[in-house]
Amino acid sequence: MVDRVAFQGETGAFSEEALHRLMPEAVPIPTPSFEGVFEAVSDGAVDWGLIPIENALFGSVHVNYDLLEEHDVVVSGEINLRVVHRLMAPGGVGLGDIRVVMSHPQALGQCRQWLTEHLRDAERRPVYDTAGAAKMVAAGEVPGSAAIASIEAAREYGLSVLAHDIAADRSNFTRFLVIGRPGSPPGLTPPPETAEAVTSIVYVLHDAVAGALHKSLAVFALRDVDLCKIESRPLMGRPGSYRFYLDLLGQSSDPAVDKALDHLREFADVRILGSYRREPPPVEIRV
Amino acid sequence: MVDRVAFQGETGAFSEEALHRLMPEAVPIPTPSFEGVFEAVSDGAVDWGLIPIENALFGSVHVNYDLLEEHDVVVSGEINLRVVHRLMAPGGVGLGDIRVVMSHPQALGQCRQWLTEHLRDAERRPVYDTAGAAKMVAAGEVPGSAAIASIEAAREYGLSVLAHDIAADRSNFTRFLVIGRPGSPPGLTPPPETAEAVTSIVYVLHDAVAGALHKSLAVFALRDVDLCKIESRPLMGRPGSYRFYLDLLGQSSDPAVDKALDHLREFADVRILGSYRREPPPVEIRV
Repeated sequence: MVDRVAFQGETGAFSEEALHRLMPEAVPIPTPSFEGVFEAVSDGAVDWGLIPIENALFGSVHVNYDLLEEHDVVVSGEINLRVVHRLMAPGGVGLGDIRVVMSHPQALGQCRQWLTEHLRDAERRPVYDTAGAAKMVAAGEVPGSAAIASIEAAREYGLSVLAHDIAADRSNFTRFLVIGRPGSPPGLTPPPETAEAVTSIVYVLHDAVAGALHKSLAVFALRDVDLCKIESRPLMGRPGSYRFYLDLLGQSSDPAVDKALDHLREFADVRILGSYRREPPPVEIRV
Repeated sequence: MVDRVAFQGETGAFSEEALHRLMPEAVPIPTPSFEGVFEAVSDGAVDWGLIPIENALFGSVHVNYDLLEEHDVVVSGEINLRVVHRLMAPGGVGLGDIRVVMSHPQALGQCRQWLTEHLRDAERRPVYDTAGAAKMVAAGEVPGSAAIASIEAAREYGLSVLAHDIAADRSNFTRFLVIGRPGSPPGLTPPPETAEAVTSIVYVLHDAVAGALHKSLAVFALRDVDLCKIESRPLMGRPGSYRFYLDLLGQSSDPAVDKALDHLREFADVRILGSYRREPPPVEIRV
């Protein structure tokens, strides 16, 4: 029985690359929107969904935190993928033939130094996503064009990679979460032991008072529960109130974590998004 | 003497709308990249820069935090702008004539419900940014096309607005920062009094130990300094280490803040990005 996994984007998107790394046997299901990924999981149309939750350069994807709260899903795993940009063109095309480089504006920006050095006279043409750029190059719509995209996009659209890993900042990575239905089998990344587990929660303090954030973190510090993410987000229409995203080390069923969450519930609304196996270091994909 | 202010994007971008609200007299200077905005400020080619730093749906723009640390600039002001999406087309075109709607994929997604209700049969065509969509519609490249973009884009490209405020989520906003050179005149938004000032800092703890985050927040809680933003970001290649972004209420020269920052420096590397007038509520622009 092969798992079907929904991801947002076209075939060849970075999400699909992450999916291949985490679940090589799974059938990827391209889905137009993040909402569509959540709905496919809730409805049972797919077994799992894979969503980006934060990027090293562009931060947390709040819209996906919102969707996590709105849907009856649980977080079942994570993967950190280093974003590797490659220059690709149809077979037989060399660097000297390239007149136009197409990609998402962020990717063009991240590869600016390489492009200045190697393709100074080529036009940079921004398009709406990297896989879409590869598709357009493969379709031959623009003569002398190349795309900056993922290795999956090169494979999908039959392009040859002319240059590997051309972004100036090699430390860019994206963190993805696997989402499933509550009560699903523990999935591909069950948390085997406390030390390797992480629990993601969202909470809103009942009262916005000075030092409230400090107090809410004390429930963990007092019990030696370590944190690996904290982020505040202002609540619209409630000045001085925030929603907090927090990742802690351990499972929600661990005694210390369980007690800390009970303590937090005394003065905050708490939602546990899930406990899952931790994958701390970004996975380096071959370049 | 009129201020020149660099922003990233084409004429008609949301950044330009924010600039017009905050500094109606300023001359906007469209700039291709965020790096270009920072360089124009550093070099003295412009008086100020305006950069997005966080969006309610898509989170903090880490790349701009990185550029703040890399350049010798200070934060001199902020503005929160509600993102209002409008449907626009050339004069004389009615809703019934529209066959293609072009915009950034995020904007198309945010207006999905409205489009399903009012333009069920029109093709949704993603392009790389909203102002670019308006430009293409105005150029008449695609017959029967309309764009979803800002009011500034409608003005710039001479399009008529057919529908106002069509996104499903009316609580989307973007926070922008004004950056200037150190020692510049206090600018348009000097912090007049403690209660109305905010100070942005970035810090990295010397040692990654359990409870370290809690300890670093204690320096503020112990002195009744209130916080309005906290965000952790993992440091690449240093597992368990983080960079923290923190906004606090008050100026860096206030005695309590000054003492708290001295205390924090005992166990962290601290960079003060600037103190500036607080603008808490998102500015509602007319729809």
